[in-house]
Amino acid sequence: MSGAIKKLIPLFDRVLVQRFAKETTTKSGIVLPESSNVKVLDATVIAVGQGARNQNGDFVPCSVKPGDKVLLPEYGGSKIEIENKEYFLFRESDIIGKWSK
Amino acid sequence: MSGAIKKLIPLFDRVLVQRFAKETTTKSGIVLPESSNVKVLDATVIAVGQGARNQNGDFVPCSVKPGDKVLLPEYGGSKIEIENKEYFLFRESDIIGKWSK
Amino acid sequence: MSGAIKKLIPLFDRVLVQRFAKETTTKSGIVLPESSNVKVLDATVIAVGQGARNQNGDFVPCSVKPGDKVLLPEYGGSKIEIENKEYFLFRESDIIGKWSK
Amino acid sequence: MSGAIKKLIPLFDRVLVQRFAKETTTKSGIVLPESSNVKVLDATVIAVGQGARNQNGDFVPCSVKPGDKVLLPEYGGSKIEIENKEYFLFRESDIIGKWSK
Amino acid sequence: MSGAIKKLIPLFDRVLVQRFAKETTTKSGIVLPESSNVKVLDATVIAVGQGARNQNGDFVPCSVKPGDKVLLPEYGGSKIEIENKEYFLFRESDIIGKWSK
Amino acid sequence: MSGAIKKLIPLFDRVLVQRFAKETTTKSGIVLPESSNVKVLDATVIAVGQGARNQNGDFVPCSVKPGDKVLLPEYGGSKIEIENKEYFLFRESDIIGKWSK
Amino acid sequence: MSGAIKKLIPLFDRVLVQRFAKETTTKSGIVLPESSNVKVLDATVIAVGQGARNQNGDFVPCSVKPGDKVLLPEYGGSKIEIENKEYFLFRESDIIGKWSK
Repeated sequence: MSGAIKKLIPLFDRVLVQRFAKETTTKSGIVLPESSNVKVLDATVIAVGQGARNQNGDFVPCSVKPGDKVLLPEYGGSKIEIENKEYFLFRESDIIGKWSK
Repeated sequence: MSGAIKKLIPLFDRVLVQRFAKETTTKSGIVLPESSNVKVLDATVIAVGQGARNQNGDFVPCSVKPGDKVLLPEYGGSKIEIENKEYFLFRESDIIGKWSK
Repeated sequence: MSGAIKKLIPLFDRVLVQRFAKETTTKSGIVLPESSNVKVLDATVIAVGQGARNQNGDFVPCSVKPGDKVLLPEYGGSKIEIENKEYFLFRESDIIGKWSK
Repeated sequence: MSGAIKKLIPLFDRVLVQRFAKETTTKSGIVLPESSNVKVLDATVIAVGQGARNQNGDFVPCSVKPGDKVLLPEYGGSKIEIENKEYFLFRESDIIGKWSK
Repeated sequence: MSGAIKKLIPLFDRVLVQRFAKETTTKSGIVLPESSNVKVLDATVIAVGQGARNQNGDFVPCSVKPGDKVLLPEYGGSKIEIENKEYFLFRESDIIGKWSK
Repeated sequence: MSGAIKKLIPLFDRVLVQRFAKETTTKSGIVLPESSNVKVLDATVIAVGQGARNQNGDFVPCSVKPGDKVLLPEYGGSKIEIENKEYFLFRESDIIGKWSK
Repeated sequence: MSGAIKKLIPLFDRVLVQRFAKETTTKSGIVLPESSNVKVLDATVIAVGQGARNQNGDFVPCSVKPGDKVLLPEYGGSKIEIENKEYFLFRESDIIGKWSK
């Protein structure tokens, strides 16, 4: 597997996201310390599973799709590393909302 | 995301509300201390998700809509800040009732 | 909201009730102390929600309606004040029975 | 309410029963002490609710009806007093069986 | 009730059984002590309820019937006495199996 | 019952199995001590119940049948003795898999 | 059973997998110590069960199939040995995702 470009297809209602990069300065320009452990709750959806199963076993498509900008909950999700990049897996139902322009 | 006007579309049966401003005086005109930690339980609905899923996976629309005046439960809900304004997210089923004129 | 007559429409299977006034004398005429903390379990239904949702998400109308005289359980329910009057909210399924003449 | 004859209509799958009177003598004629706290598990059904709701929200009629002689479980049920008479409320599913002649 | 022959009709998926009499001697003829608290797990079905309810509320007939010889679980069941005879009530789903010749 | 050949028909999704005999020597011929408490997880299916009930109450036939060679879980199951032979009862869903040639 | 080539057919939604071999050197060629207890989370699907049952009792086929390369969760799964080779059993719903080229 190591040579090919590894692409993960999540299963079921799992959603693979990448958090936005941390803000390095405040809005008024003050430089934020590198170590500030403010959690970034905004993220981009990278990949989604086929969806959860309903009571008959049919897949129910996820209501978010790759490219969506979403708001993550404060807690939860599991970190995984793919090709040295940091991603997170959340269940669809744990994602709080979508940002729209 | 920071430049554009951020609008959050809650997911599923989440309801985004903004609590009424705190009363500064009692009905008989007595000025209330700023620090009084009386919780405001009346709020305005700002945005609602597509609704919870039923057993087949279909969305069941929320029974409250943006603009409704609602009565919140004493506890629960999660606070989120959007563009320095304070909002709260509740599940539809936790909202106690709607105020009608 | 404060000027208009506030009317609360409960949501889902919540039932808004007002307990009967406390008996001030026993049947044989003995005056009961004001402070007697005998709980009044009889109440009048003031308003009901659209009902609980069934598995498809459809509302199932409540089996009590405004004006019904009901028997409340010993415990449970949450107190709310509207325009200085004391009401209680119960789930439909917690109400024990209806009094009929 | 106090003047009219109060009749309680239980809600849902609740069953209102009245326990048989306590036996005062054993079968062989020995007088039982008044204070014997032997629990009477036989009872007569006084009134039944509309029944429990199934998954669609429809009522499922109770399988016992007023007048039935039933066997109560050792524990459970809640006591209520109506016009100075002692009754008990059980859920239909907790009632063990019906006595037939 | 005391004069008539009392027959209990269990409710729902309850099964009324009577355990076999305890073996008084081993297969090789050794007399077993009266007090041996070996539990008899074989029993005869005396009466069955209408069956458990499915999700629509319809009764699902029991899969054992009066006269069946059954194997009881080691634990569980509740003892009841009818006309000085000892019976036991089990839920249908707790009965392990049926003995066939 | 004691004279006839006792055959147990399990109820519902119970599966009656008999574990393979313990290996007395290793593959390379070393004699294993009698007391070695290595658990034998391979077994033969002796009898199966009608199957579990689905939500409507219909039986769903077991997916293993008498004669199948199965892999048991490390833990669980209940031991029963029939005519001095040792059998075990497992729920269908606890059986890990079937061995095929 | 010992002579024949043993093939395990998992039951229900169980998935039999074989973890990839441990990397012996880092990408930059540094030899990794044999004892490094880094867990290999990548695996190949060897066999799958008929699938979980839906509410009617019908099997819902697994969404992974033999040969798929999958990402396992950090914890869970049960180890089994077949013909001295180490395999693991996971529930379909616990498998995080599939790797695609």
